[in-house]
Amino acid sequence: MSNNDNRNFVEQIADINTNFAQWYTDVVVKTQLVDYGPVKGTMVIRPYGYAIWENIQRELDKRFKATGHQNAYFPLLIPMSFFTKEAEHVEGFAPEVAVVTHAGGEELAEPLAIRPTSETIIGNMYSKWLQSYRDLPILINQWANVMRWEKTTRPFLRTSEFLWQEGHTCHATEEEAMEETMKMLGVYKEFAENCLAIPVICGRKTEKEKFAGAVATFGMEAMMKDGKSLQAGTSHYLGQNFSKAFEIKFLDKDGVQKYAYTTSWGVSTRLIGALIMAHGDQRGLVIPPVVAPVQVVIIPIAAKKAGVVEACNLLKERLESAGIRVKLDDSDNSPGWKFNEWEMRGVPVRIELGPRDLEGGKMAVFRRDTCAKDFYPLEGAEQTVQALIETIQKDMLESARVRRDERIVDADTLEELLKGVDGGNFVKAGWCGCRECEDEVKAKTAATARVCDSQNTHAKCVVCGKPSKHTVIFARAY
Amino acid sequence: MSNNDNRNFVEQIADINTNFAQWYTDVVVKTQLVDYGPVKGTMVIRPYGYAIWENIQRELDKRFKATGHQNAYFPLLIPMSFFTKEAEHVEGFAPEVAVVTHAGGEELAEPLAIRPTSETIIGNMYSKWLQSYRDLPILINQWANVMRWEKTTRPFLRTSEFLWQEGHTCHATEEEAMEETMKMLGVYKEFAENCLAIPVICGRKTEKEKFAGAVATFGMEAMMKDGKSLQAGTSHYLGQNFSKAFEIKFLDKDGVQKYAYTTSWGVSTRLIGALIMAHGDQRGLVIPPVVAPVQVVIIPIAAKKAGVVEACNLLKERLESAGIRVKLDDSDNSPGWKFNEWEMRGVPVRIELGPRDLEGGKMAVFRRDTCAKDFYPLEGAEQTVQALIETIQKDMLESARVRRDERIVDADTLEELLKGVDGGNFVKAGWCGCRECEDEVKAKTAATARVCDSQNTHAKCVVCGKPSKHTVIFARAY
Repeated sequence: MSNNDNRNFVEQIADINTNFAQWYTDVVVKTQLVDYGPVKGTMVIRPYGYAIWENIQRELDKRFKATGHQNAYFPLLIPMSFFTKEAEHVEGFAPEVAVVTHAGGEELAEPLAIRPTSETIIGNMYSKWLQSYRDLPILINQWANVMRWEKTTRPFLRTSEFLWQEGHTCHATEEEAMEETMKMLGVYKEFAENCLAIPVICGRKTEKEKFAGAVATFGMEAMMKDGKSLQAGTSHYLGQNFSKAFEIKFLDKDGVQKYAYTTSWGVSTRLIGALIMAHGDQRGLVIPPVVAPVQVVIIPIAAKKAGVVEACNLLKERLESAGIRVKLDDSDNSPGWKFNEWEMRGVPVRIELGPRDLEGGKMAVFRRDTCAKDFYPLEGAEQTVQALIETIQKDMLESARVRRDERIVDADTLEELLKGVDGGNFVKAGWCGCRECEDEVKAKTAATARVCDSQNTHAKCVVCGKPSKHTVIFARAY
Repeated sequence: MSNNDNRNFVEQIADINTNFAQWYTDVVVKTQLVDYGPVKGTMVIRPYGYAIWENIQRELDKRFKATGHQNAYFPLLIPMSFFTKEAEHVEGFAPEVAVVTHAGGEELAEPLAIRPTSETIIGNMYSKWLQSYRDLPILINQWANVMRWEKTTRPFLRTSEFLWQEGHTCHATEEEAMEETMKMLGVYKEFAENCLAIPVICGRKTEKEKFAGAVATFGMEAMMKDGKSLQAGTSHYLGQNFSKAFEIKFLDKDGVQKYAYTTSWGVSTRLIGALIMAHGDQRGLVIPPVVAPVQVVIIPIAAKKAGVVEACNLLKERLESAGIRVKLDDSDNSPGWKFNEWEMRGVPVRIELGPRDLEGGKMAVFRRDTCAKDFYPLEGAEQTVQALIETIQKDMLESARVRRDERIVDADTLEELLKGVDGGNFVKAGWCGCRECEDEVKAKTAATARVCDSQNTHAKCVVCGKPSKHTVIFARAY
């Protein structure tokens, strides 16, 4: 029962410490999460990857509905003229848009954009639907594909087409819209931590980094194992920018026509990239149990011995009826091959069951997160495994948090900031608030302002030395 | 407690008997299932409509997984050159395709089609993934949007973009592929009958009506209230047409390279149109409980009287904890207004609860399908309502079946066939099997061959009088 035979799979994965980018590519392709599509910049999400997305969708959708949102579906194609109605928005998105010029055998009178995001077309519909304060708030979410043209492909991280959800809400007042913006950021944070086991830092984005057309963007940032940051979700307070551009108005209680205040918020299949890079190791994926397609893999040892496969099947049924997602690998491959395969694919728990285990009424249980193996009685396996799954989920968050917190450093100078990000850290530093200093940080260190910290704990701007307005988390980012 | 006050809503719906097309449009728009998008041919699926689609998805997805399928996601954009690889396929789909010619600010080297269906791009990926007989069968489904250009808009029935699922499978032998084709047709039929309460007639499509690129298409046809037929789902046996066009090959057990046999099958948001037109009446929608967004609406009577709203809330909680989807309408509108509103929106069960009911420990229960009202004890309401919901589901199927079976007639001549479809019937008639006679039926009666019946019960072709090869169900169709 050695883990060391037949490690051919693992040897094919690039070294995580010296070549993180290649490690990532190796892992996503070899575990069959994803493949490259025929058109540059596109990906195919394969069943194992899509099953993670389904689990993410289920967990998020439950939370959206619990906070009063309903799903709807808006058209993929947006008249190009819609984009020009909000000046910042068109500037931000026009360069990335894919355009339909011909359809049904004819050239179109007006070219149509494939949605890069749906504020404009949803705004157009809301202007029709919204009449009175009684219609407010409008709380709608959409699960959809979107397109932002890319020439390179980084599966889940940067592709022309990706899957996401986009919430779009309308409110009577600034306060309510801001409350919604922060509430959904909170939903994302709770989801990231409790479902993906990824600790996140939330905060306001700088003007430079905000969403094109927003008054304010709030983001959550997650640290990957190489110390870089990944923007894992954003929530935008749009003020009246889009309601004025699209005439989203209502008759208020006081008999006055007013523009609504709107928000939008989204997360995407990037989250799959985030969980891979937040938890993976040299053996491959480590998937948090809540979103793992397979939570427990059962591997028969000496499968030809009488009773082994039957016992494995019985255990599978017991665990499944306790609501656990189980795979029994009864293929012809050797146990060692299977160990490697399922470790690479990141299954949280492996149970090995052979004749000796059965005699002793026990099972060998391997935890993917710590790679520790223990023996437990077969009796009460449902409770044991359920408890272990919950422990793994918590431990993964906790160890990611420890890993991250060790790698947040402070800087008072640009040199310290550069040293910090070179060392794979998030760097906290003061910032005067001006665009020139923000640009200077990027030019000198390749780090960007990820989010403003909740408190301004630094006296001076890391660039110009003037008084700090915000303490900012700087990092290199995906 | 009259049903007849305040019927302003219902009066706005066109007469179902004399103007079915307008009735349909009125119902889908006024019940907020759907709205028209800004681009011709597009629709917005509003929350009430999308909730039906979510219920359809949940029920179908469960069935797909129970039959061994996994979900995945393939790119939206397909290189135009892919279409030309299967001759019939390109001929069928090229005229409907929307084409992206520019993206990221540049003209593309090769124009890209927005998928009208995904056989080609999925075939391209399968050719990479399939190596050995051990990889078979490949059983994958995709939930996605597709685009087939339309200049007119009939919400849910005919729009440029619609939502659907498309299953795509690969098999080692013709037998297995044909078995899959028929199995999924069976899944659709069981779903249509048990979830949508729509009886369907399944059978093989004629050459003229089959999917472009298939060896054989099997469809299920449903009768709408105007006697027209709606194709509610199709399952295609593709033989080796796509495997040869896309080099989907495997090394078989015998060491020989072979082309796989493939299938595809799909249903779409058309199903929402089907359930509206199969069950709706002059008051509006009648939604079968299994897919109804709201299964029970509770309406307080004399809501200001002490204890009424509290009792309604308590009942709501009791029903919800029994797994029933409940809406309590405690808005300021009058009970009569609410009755009409929720009848129009097709909620299967309405419970009215007022001071007198509470005194007597009872509730008034209205069934939307029969429009009958009865009183039941409040005690045991969970069981009563659950049982009623199940009864309604079964009764709706049964009454749709009776309605349909009364409207299937036989014809021996073209005149009889015309008279039959003019009278809003499905017409069974013999057919010699030649394209000319099929075209002649369409030219003279505007009816098309929907499916071939399972048995050939007619002696002669309804057109030419030669021996009948197939008894065909002819109907006018959506």
